[in-house]
Amino acid sequence: METALFEQLDQLYDEMVDIRRHLHQYPELSFQEEYTPSYIAEFHEHLGHQVRRNVGNRGVTAVLEGGQPGPVIALRADFDALPIQEENTHSFRSKVDGAMHACGHDGHTATLLGLAKAINYLKHKWKGSVVFIHQHAEEYAPGGAIDMIKDGCLDGVDVIFGTHLWASVPYGTVQYKYGPMMASVDRFHIDIIGQGGHGAMPHLTKDAIVIGSQLVMNLQQLVSRRVDPVESAVVSVGSFEAANAFNVIADQARIQGTVRTFSEDVRSLIEAELEQLTHTTCQGANASADFHYYRGYPAVVNHDEETRFLAECAKQVPDVSVVEEMKPQMSGEDFAYYLQHVKGAFFFTGAKHPEWKTAYPHHHPKFDIDERAMLTAAKVIGKAAIDYGK
Amino acid sequence: METALFEQLDQLYDEMVDIRRHLHQYPELSFQEEYTPSYIAEFHEHLGHQVRRNVGNRGVTAVLEGGQPGPVIALRADFDALPIQEENTHSFRSKVDGAMHACGHDGHTATLLGLAKAINYLKHKWKGSVVFIHQHAEEYAPGGAIDMIKDGCLDGVDVIFGTHLWASVPYGTVQYKYGPMMASVDRFHIDIIGQGGHGAMPHLTKDAIVIGSQLVMNLQQLVSRRVDPVESAVVSVGSFEAANAFNVIADQARIQGTVRTFSEDVRSLIEAELEQLTHTTCQGANASADFHYYRGYPAVVNHDEETRFLAECAKQVPDVSVVEEMKPQMSGEDFAYYLQHVKGAFFFTGAKHPEWKTAYPHHHPKFDIDERAMLTAAKVIGKAAIDYGK
Amino acid sequence: METALFEQLDQLYDEMVDIRRHLHQYPELSFQEEYTPSYIAEFHEHLGHQVRRNVGNRGVTAVLEGGQPGPVIALRADFDALPIQEENTHSFRSKVDGAMHACGHDGHTATLLGLAKAINYLKHKWKGSVVFIHQHAEEYAPGGAIDMIKDGCLDGVDVIFGTHLWASVPYGTVQYKYGPMMASVDRFHIDIIGQGGHGAMPHLTKDAIVIGSQLVMNLQQLVSRRVDPVESAVVSVGSFEAANAFNVIADQARIQGTVRTFSEDVRSLIEAELEQLTHTTCQGANASADFHYYRGYPAVVNHDEETRFLAECAKQVPDVSVVEEMKPQMSGEDFAYYLQHVKGAFFFTGAKHPEWKTAYPHHHPKFDIDERAMLTAAKVIGKAAIDYGK
Amino acid sequence: METALFEQLDQLYDEMVDIRRHLHQYPELSFQEEYTPSYIAEFHEHLGHQVRRNVGNRGVTAVLEGGQPGPVIALRADFDALPIQEENTHSFRSKVDGAMHACGHDGHTATLLGLAKAINYLKHKWKGSVVFIHQHAEEYAPGGAIDMIKDGCLDGVDVIFGTHLWASVPYGTVQYKYGPMMASVDRFHIDIIGQGGHGAMPHLTKDAIVIGSQLVMNLQQLVSRRVDPVESAVVSVGSFEAANAFNVIADQARIQGTVRTFSEDVRSLIEAELEQLTHTTCQGANASADFHYYRGYPAVVNHDEETRFLAECAKQVPDVSVVEEMKPQMSGEDFAYYLQHVKGAFFFTGAKHPEWKTAYPHHHPKFDIDERAMLTAAKVIGKAAIDYGK
Repeated sequence: METALFEQLDQLYDEMVDIRRHLHQYPELSFQEEYTPSYIAEFHEHLGHQVRRNVGNRGVTAVLEGGQPGPVIALRADFDALPIQEENTHSFRSKVDGAMHACGHDGHTATLLGLAKAINYLKHKWKGSVVFIHQHAEEYAPGGAIDMIKDGCLDGVDVIFGTHLWASVPYGTVQYKYGPMMASVDRFHIDIIGQGGHGAMPHLTKDAIVIGSQLVMNLQQLVSRRVDPVESAVVSVGSFEAANAFNVIADQARIQGTVRTFSEDVRSLIEAELEQLTHTTCQGANASADFHYYRGYPAVVNHDEETRFLAECAKQVPDVSVVEEMKPQMSGEDFAYYLQHVKGAFFFTGAKHPEWKTAYPHHHPKFDIDERAMLTAAKVIGKAAIDYGK
Repeated sequence: METALFEQLDQLYDEMVDIRRHLHQYPELSFQEEYTPSYIAEFHEHLGHQVRRNVGNRGVTAVLEGGQPGPVIALRADFDALPIQEENTHSFRSKVDGAMHACGHDGHTATLLGLAKAINYLKHKWKGSVVFIHQHAEEYAPGGAIDMIKDGCLDGVDVIFGTHLWASVPYGTVQYKYGPMMASVDRFHIDIIGQGGHGAMPHLTKDAIVIGSQLVMNLQQLVSRRVDPVESAVVSVGSFEAANAFNVIADQARIQGTVRTFSEDVRSLIEAELEQLTHTTCQGANASADFHYYRGYPAVVNHDEETRFLAECAKQVPDVSVVEEMKPQMSGEDFAYYLQHVKGAFFFTGAKHPEWKTAYPHHHPKFDIDERAMLTAAKVIGKAAIDYGK
Repeated sequence: METALFEQLDQLYDEMVDIRRHLHQYPELSFQEEYTPSYIAEFHEHLGHQVRRNVGNRGVTAVLEGGQPGPVIALRADFDALPIQEENTHSFRSKVDGAMHACGHDGHTATLLGLAKAINYLKHKWKGSVVFIHQHAEEYAPGGAIDMIKDGCLDGVDVIFGTHLWASVPYGTVQYKYGPMMASVDRFHIDIIGQGGHGAMPHLTKDAIVIGSQLVMNLQQLVSRRVDPVESAVVSVGSFEAANAFNVIADQARIQGTVRTFSEDVRSLIEAELEQLTHTTCQGANASADFHYYRGYPAVVNHDEETRFLAECAKQVPDVSVVEEMKPQMSGEDFAYYLQHVKGAFFFTGAKHPEWKTAYPHHHPKFDIDERAMLTAAKVIGKAAIDYGK
Repeated sequence: METALFEQLDQLYDEMVDIRRHLHQYPELSFQEEYTPSYIAEFHEHLGHQVRRNVGNRGVTAVLEGGQPGPVIALRADFDALPIQEENTHSFRSKVDGAMHACGHDGHTATLLGLAKAINYLKHKWKGSVVFIHQHAEEYAPGGAIDMIKDGCLDGVDVIFGTHLWASVPYGTVQYKYGPMMASVDRFHIDIIGQGGHGAMPHLTKDAIVIGSQLVMNLQQLVSRRVDPVESAVVSVGSFEAANAFNVIADQARIQGTVRTFSEDVRSLIEAELEQLTHTTCQGANASADFHYYRGYPAVVNHDEETRFLAECAKQVPDVSVVEEMKPQMSGEDFAYYLQHVKGAFFFTGAKHPEWKTAYPHHHPKFDIDERAMLTAAKVIGKAAIDYGK
């Protein structure tokens, strides 16, 4: 059956490109998606799938029932865009000011729709059923996955697969990873509350900039001293706001940042130590702080057996020349939530065009993909969907 | 003659109050003064003084020639206001949105105009001449003094006196200071040029916030280790700007601050060490910096003999109950420039009303003065002007 | 043949215990070993092996030629002790003041000698030959391995295996690790050269304690910001020496520490950045530094195929109940050098007695092992030696 | 009478030199003085003064009753030496290994003995009485002054004068200072109690060196931010002890230092803030600290009237060419205690020989004085003693 599937996908490639380029022109920001889910729902309705709209707010699920008994396999693609002004000049560039598919979710959606159509051709022979999960709002915490799961998108599902087209990995390569693959993504927000005053009279103030700077220096130790060195962790301060006249002493400073880990223990350790460091640093200067820590997506932790299975499938796809285990990534993905509920695996599909010396990174105004990666991804996932039923 | 002068001033007190309250309603920001210098110039023209307008841009000088030979004495008052929204509710509050006489320069001007009128009554007996220097733009570097001096306001002058009405010092008190009285006021502006990136990938960046924080911590040593502890110095960072998304690493951070000293050696030491620390801190992180240091007003350094003379004069003014040497102040004044050219002394005239528990500090939206301090100031300066000719 | 080998080893167990306890009483420090290598050499000579003494200074090699053609397999055990005063009270405690086998090398040696004797019984059927590498000075850089290799101990060798008895891992468990298993171990030594003086006159000095403290704080960023978070690295300052009278300012401070990594790239990065940070931190304070960086053992990096092979062998040893992949360790081993020259694998053999709640850590004055771990280790290595020839 | 006194002193100069050189050869450390106080007591006994030995432990007082009624004037000289190995090569160098009069107290004693003898010649005409206070242990807190006062050395005294021969001030110069002249001298001792461990496993430790370094950095802010910039203060860490093997993590670090101020308010502020910073810095790292703060000598604060009086006296001494107000010194003196009990003034007598380009600093192994400074000092103090009775 896989030969038939691959042939169908080859024939559907041009349509996948069309879909991707169409969606690329009409990007919609996270939690604001209207046109895209509607487009997806209609596509599946045309194929006769059981479609649910507004799943967990703005998601879409579509179920294809195969003609044979077998497992329930979920395949997931996300469809939101980013608040970035596109700088590409190709014909299908974004028509929406300040919004752009700069992370390849347009490609993810086109891949899954193409695959849905291909499987649909084979549905009579198909063993089991396929749940196509089209997820909104992957780019913005708390993300769409958590709400779609609450709304039942995984009910009855046996296994889930998903991929990210990855622009820095060459076309033809598939990357898998046992266990932790992408990091948890938390945010912290600290308002240091000092006491302002004249720049010439520091002794009458509690200098929020000095306190904030001291805190930034101190929290380097979270990673360098508190975390087991064979674990991975990042604590980055992204924003330090204390803009004032040059000759005053700041009464407040706002510090925001992100924490990334692969382990819940490390995550909890950092949260606790960061809060303690914040308060003790402020106390040492007779100041105080409002400390807020927001847990975002957990780490993407692949299941061992499904990962091995997926890697084996990938090796049998003719478009794939390299299948390799990757290092984990400190960036995040709310695919993590699905893997907390059902078995499955997430993987990277290389999307760097052979002619590009270096690819623009994800979220860059000139981000682009080698569109053939959609075909690769569809075949790997399709192969997995077939084989899982065997 | 001093008895006659004091009587005149007592009679002019109500007019001084009127002038001050009138000017208070029409504050003008530094280097934007139009109405105020025109008002002043007309006042002196009515008295028959030789008036020059637009001295050093927006200043006014008026010369009164006495009937007897004697010294040329300059008396200075500044007349600019501040970009502050007044929060007082009295009848003569500012009529200009976002501008306020929140440092008492309205009172300085009224004092000097009242004194001019009083001396004018006595001009036939007056020994020597008086140059009334009405200065614009004291609040904003480079200040008006430096341009007025270039434009000749001190030509031929033998000595200069000036005062600041000071809201935290009780009415009835005059404070003098030998040598350094107010600090030099410099500004620095540092742009740290790192390399931005994803918050999850610090190793691919040069984290401008960490570098900036490190610099803020390091420069505490300028005062704690590099400056002779029996000298005074302040290095304050007033502004730290690196506002970004929480999950990026900042490519730049802007740090601005002020340096205050009483000594040119200390000032130069701090400037040199601050620049060196900035560059070495950045080099240690493979980053760089644009470093700018702007010298503002030098320290106000009173001349010993004129200070002693002034303190003696103050003791003989009936309105003055306390004459005391004050500690130096780390705030600045461009009166400093006059003292670099001619002999003279600057002093503080107490302007805190006996009924106030604490006075609102200078530059506060509710700043106010005990208006009787104008009379005190006029008498001390007037007495000095008379006695200097003896 | 493995059944025969396992039986022989079971019978030799008491002798292995005797050997271990004997050696335990006569520990010899690294690069000072005399009795131990002599003892080992005689043991092998009695078995008729070709023995070389003083290999690479103090090492011993013994070659057993099997009766059948086959590969050349090296098996390594280290035999040096530590400068620690033993606090155990058992009958075979150290008889040497200030020296102790506190890392289990006595057990390593007994294991390898027992295994040698067992293989010797089977030598006519043995395929290939076995090189027993008894290494001196594992505990003290530059270690004995590097010299023994230079002196030819690996000449003609096809593969090498070795183990460490590990007191925190339960008896019955074998731990393997693909790729990096133990860290590289480097040392740095920094003399900060400031300028001393009276504690009351910091401005006349270059305060070496402040500079040193600043450096310690700054170098936290090596791990927190400069190293890829998915790599492992440690930079620890172990010693800060600037002991003086309380009321002086220190002219010098000595800082010593260690750097641990699994990757040569990370290692080189840290060395370069640490040196740069040292110099820029000193320059910012007008001081200087003598910076020394000593590369110790490289990381122990196992070969994939040999690791898989070894794990499979371990699973077939009856004494072994658990075979698992371990996390890498930031501690070091000069077994690393052998793996840079020939294929092979290093592994941990659990040596924590079931009755111990927690084991004393390696290098502790009360360190001990479950001696049965020697039998486990001998069987796993013996099994590997047999199977490698198949 | 002053003419007679000056003549006597001129004649006694050679004897003063002899006394100083004799004492210089037999230095005695603080709180170990035996020979010196005995020598002094005998000298005064020969003159017929009322001598008390062992005053406040090892001090000596001698009272000369004048023939006329008048005030009771105390004159103080200290007589202890320092634990320094002399490196001078002159004939009268120290005969005691490891001890040296490296601060000029030998000169102070010779000055006061010479002056005592000179006054003794004039005793019939002398108005009032003179208490010669020869103090032990000025160099080592808690010092001898506090105990001598408790033992009554100031009972009945109206005023006290004292001087320090000062090697960096030219011979012929006398320096006085209104108000604070020398600083208070406190000591702090902080034991940081972390948790040690293997250098490769920072996450299992509380790194006392990192905590200590952070504290050293943080406490720079005591001077740079917490103290009024027009006040003087020094916080110096003189000793940082955490000497260990390079590859461990330190469980403890000992930090010792000194605090200097002129004001009791600033002193108390720094003590409180230093203690708070110590504890909050440790708490942020889950560690703790033993904090000890020892108050040493208070600031030497001269009385205004006595200072003016002394300066006037100095101007009338023919040997004195320059009388000037000095900057305060951050070094300390237990003369401070006397001034807390009676009126008086301390001053510096220039002792730098005209041929010396720079003088060796006090406490240097090659420290020396221009001995003629003893004559200057004796005349200034003698003149003050005479005039005070007028």
